[in-house]
Amino acid sequence: MEKFNSIERLSFNQITQDKWSMREAVEGCARAQIPWIALWRHKLAEIGLTETRRLVRDAGLRVSSICRGGMFPAATAAIRKERLDDNRRAVEEAAELGAEVVVLVCGPAPDRDIDSARKWVAEGIEQLAPFARSCGVKLGIEPLHPMFAAERSVVVTLGQATSLAEPFSPDQVGVIVDVFHVWWDPELYAQISRASGRILGFHVNDWIVPTPDLLMGRGMMGDGVIELRRIRTAVEDAGYFGPIEVEIFNQALWDQPGDEVLALIKQRYLEHV
Amino acid sequence: MEKFNSIERLSFNQITQDKWSMREAVEGCARAQIPWIALWRHKLAEIGLTETRRLVRDAGLRVSSICRGGMFPAATAAIRKERLDDNRRAVEEAAELGAEVVVLVCGPAPDRDIDSARKWVAEGIEQLAPFARSCGVKLGIEPLHPMFAAERSVVVTLGQATSLAEPFSPDQVGVIVDVFHVWWDPELYAQISRASGRILGFHVNDWIVPTPDLLMGRGMMGDGVIELRRIRTAVEDAGYFGPIEVEIFNQALWDQPGDEVLALIKQRYLEHV
Repeated sequence: MEKFNSIERLSFNQITQDKWSMREAVEGCARAQIPWIALWRHKLAEIGLTETRRLVRDAGLRVSSICRGGMFPAATAAIRKERLDDNRRAVEEAAELGAEVVVLVCGPAPDRDIDSARKWVAEGIEQLAPFARSCGVKLGIEPLHPMFAAERSVVVTLGQATSLAEPFSPDQVGVIVDVFHVWWDPELYAQISRASGRILGFHVNDWIVPTPDLLMGRGMMGDGVIELRRIRTAVEDAGYFGPIEVEIFNQALWDQPGDEVLALIKQRYLEHV
Repeated sequence: MEKFNSIERLSFNQITQDKWSMREAVEGCARAQIPWIALWRHKLAEIGLTETRRLVRDAGLRVSSICRGGMFPAATAAIRKERLDDNRRAVEEAAELGAEVVVLVCGPAPDRDIDSARKWVAEGIEQLAPFARSCGVKLGIEPLHPMFAAERSVVVTLGQATSLAEPFSPDQVGVIVDVFHVWWDPELYAQISRASGRILGFHVNDWIVPTPDLLMGRGMMGDGVIELRRIRTAVEDAGYFGPIEVEIFNQALWDQPGDEVLALIKQRYLEHV
């Protein structure tokens, strides 16, 4: 099948090689002929928007997404307002860089009250959506794995993310499917189908056994237990044919030379995704 | 409220002090006047069923559950048959010890095929249930946290566990609610309500932040973010008034003197559960 023999949809999420500067990441992708890159804002902040845009354009890369907005819940209205302002900046950065999507990692509760935190997430998205629309940028709600519920996101299932997105037009607010976060879900395929027309990103990596660490234990595609091609097929059946980001938090990968990591990504992507 | 001022429903799950032998755990509970104990089969195996029964009876303890049965999925029919035989022994042990419930930790997939593993779980429960009924023992399906999906259980939500239990009479096959495994679930309270009349056990501990370890990172009640009393109330609204097990896998607790751990459990149970 031709579609499995091409890297034209492959996007390198730069967190996969966090030691690389923005310049190194962009040049690495160009050398490896990887057509897409997903940019993180802490890297962007190091050299600024203008320089980043120049680097990306000169390398002929396209930006699949900006990571990340979100982090909506906070104990006070003042802090929630600050977070919203920061989200607006993320949207502006995405617009400047030609990225269609800002990925929303929605944030943890500031206390034990998870219901209130979930309401703040819904409010935050409602407040951010009109601004994003005016900038031509889409918001992608990424459910995180439930093991991050206390520290990173109270949005933990694809069904929940889709429910948050549904009040909005499907081309304005949608969901991001990251296999690491959703593979375990008994409702996965039903929820991917329900999210048809609303999937704004697809992230791949793997779940390795035994799992060495909550955050830094993700694996390279093919090294774990996730049914990658099955999930990809379901996501395509739901109408998503955009870039496929490789996003792996793994210390061993961070310690390897970046060009070797990119070569391995390309190989495993063709074999397993 | 009187019900929050009593330890009459408190059960000590002996894994919380894994260094203790069966005798030490039983005598520790007796000294602390904790009325219930949950027994693990690896401890039982060390001294045998007869001696365990004698110890428990002499101490005036009641056994809230036997941990654990399950582990149904396996690559070959021969291994699945062995697992079923082992589950029958767990049921017999529960009957001998006067425990109403065998806790089922359903097991991981032997490969990447999580759907087949889930079918084997359903088949295993179907095959085990008549035998359990004939022994007067109930089967409690415990959904584990999704972070254990690859290594311990393909049953990862309360809704999924309840769906597995529903083909059976509610007094024969039910579910175990362990706050650590389910607290993150956006459907938690709806699913507890759905499981009304079918809850066979309630386990408490806490989710600590930052989470130090997947398996050994559980916290003492009150040290984390779980809304313990809210969940307890929901479980009671669903008709469960049986023993409440304290089950904590935590290296720091394992390293403390057992009697101190029991004293702390009693205090935190009264304060937070």
